[in-house]
Amino acid sequence: MIDVCLLGTGGTMPLPERALTALAIRYNGSTFLVDCGEGTQVQLRKKGLSMHDIDVIFITHFHADHIVGLPGLLLSMAKCDRTAPVSIVAPKGASFVIRSLCVTAPVMPFDINITEMHEKQESFFFNGINVSAQQADHSATCYAYSFELKRSGKFDPVRARELNIDVKLWKQLQRGESVISGDQTFTPDMVLGKPRKGLKITYCTDTRPTEDIVLLAESSDLLICEGMYAEDDKLKMAIDKKHMLFSEAAGIAGKSCSAELWLTHFSPSLSDPYQYEEYAKSLFKNTVIPHDLESTELMFNNV
Amino acid sequence: MIDVCLLGTGGTMPLPERALTALAIRYNGSTFLVDCGEGTQVQLRKKGLSMHDIDVIFITHFHADHIVGLPGLLLSMAKCDRTAPVSIVAPKGASFVIRSLCVTAPVMPFDINITEMHEKQESFFFNGINVSAQQADHSATCYAYSFELKRSGKFDPVRARELNIDVKLWKQLQRGESVISGDQTFTPDMVLGKPRKGLKITYCTDTRPTEDIVLLAESSDLLICEGMYAEDDKLKMAIDKKHMLFSEAAGIAGKSCSAELWLTHFSPSLSDPYQYEEYAKSLFKNTVIPHDLESTELMFNNV
Repeated sequence: MIDVCLLGTGGTMPLPERALTALAIRYNGSTFLVDCGEGTQVQLRKKGLSMHDIDVIFITHFHADHIVGLPGLLLSMAKCDRTAPVSIVAPKGASFVIRSLCVTAPVMPFDINITEMHEKQESFFFNGINVSAQQADHSATCYAYSFELKRSGKFDPVRARELNIDVKLWKQLQRGESVISGDQTFTPDMVLGKPRKGLKITYCTDTRPTEDIVLLAESSDLLICEGMYAEDDKLKMAIDKKHMLFSEAAGIAGKSCSAELWLTHFSPSLSDPYQYEEYAKSLFKNTVIPHDLESTELMFNNV
Repeated sequence: MIDVCLLGTGGTMPLPERALTALAIRYNGSTFLVDCGEGTQVQLRKKGLSMHDIDVIFITHFHADHIVGLPGLLLSMAKCDRTAPVSIVAPKGASFVIRSLCVTAPVMPFDINITEMHEKQESFFFNGINVSAQQADHSATCYAYSFELKRSGKFDPVRARELNIDVKLWKQLQRGESVISGDQTFTPDMVLGKPRKGLKITYCTDTRPTEDIVLLAESSDLLICEGMYAEDDKLKMAIDKKHMLFSEAAGIAGKSCSAELWLTHFSPSLSDPYQYEEYAKSLFKNTVIPHDLESTELMFNNV
């Protein structure tokens, strides 16, 4: 239902065997990209994702490892004859930063619609997905994002027939829209059960752990969270650099009742994060230490 | 004597199996980098080249595939605790372009000394290497570069003894420096034979072929030259986009009496340049169609 691909797992700088952290979310023919460091466009190609399907690019913050791939990506979109507009959601100052980064190609053959976020919490609705942004606690203004596909209650055909609703109108009601038939108005609540659990992905890097992020991530099916350092003895460095330990990411996963945790944004000094798999699972059972291009498909529960 | 590594062979955009064209030249503990597209820093790491040894970065022009990797590279140098200054040689406007690209990290912990070129031909001397820059014929102001290690004549110890020159002074004379001993001045020409052939590398992308470039490349041991398109039926496209065909690069190699030609900056549409190896060698015998990280060591002839 929703395809998720963690394009890279690195932080700070791209490495030969580890691309920078960025996320692609595909739903209903549209791709969202979260962050765009140096090399992100190559990871998109490795995954076979089309430059034409990227409709919205969300930027967490303006540190180089999260944004300097943007001019190259936009130019590659242009070289692929893209003409459809691209939306970019980013912290305040985005227009200046993006204009500066694109100094070598200031004009693109498509519109770039930039939304600058000024509030601590912002919300958006793109292509059927509810997006929530929550300001994080980093050395630059930074946002964590959640992406939620809501699911309406189950349609009750028996009830619809009892109400003599024309079958042709059922689809609109299933979509949550009211319909008028003759002098009667039918509202979705007449024929739909209680809203069912949808799908939720939360993406959170770079930040210290905060209660606001726990709230943002509440009941995520998948929490993708930075774990810059594996071991607790790196706490001082994590605090100084405003990053997180594996144990702190696990704490957010647990408190937010997330179903699964993917750690990411590994420090270049963390040469083998996979040796900590058992440790990470001891902190939060459903933890994955992903590889670049780790992918999954999130499906609605069949209820 | 001089190590040469072609870090990538691609043009326009980085691809999963083909990094963007850039060159590393190592001599006497110092590294020159020519161009820095998205991903060049990763190629440097793949080759095991140190961020501390890059003393001079030469930029051919300001198209994204030749420069947008610069902020990431400079930041990675900073993260590696570099404090030694970096020199950048680039076309006019470089200070503005580089400042714009580095918007996300405007302050580095080392000096960046930018030299903007304004003339059609410019020359420099860095770390024992003579560098010549020649304006090319591209859609943006673009320079081709040659790097030449000159070699003095052979030292004649018999003649030095005849002149009663103290052995302690020989090394200076060998290096081409005059020495004073008592009331006598000895000049290098007294003890050195005719200058011998040195080593020369020419790097030429992106451009149409020109006579000036033939002159720049004269007698190169290695000519690294763009061959954006393999087949002659792409001539119109090459002219329109101000690039070169394999046959045009071979023409420059032949006219300049270069010893060896490496083609590079392949169009993304040229998915398998290696199938044209025989064809390329028929145009100029000593042609290599290199892979990313193709390397060689150029040595003085033992004469």
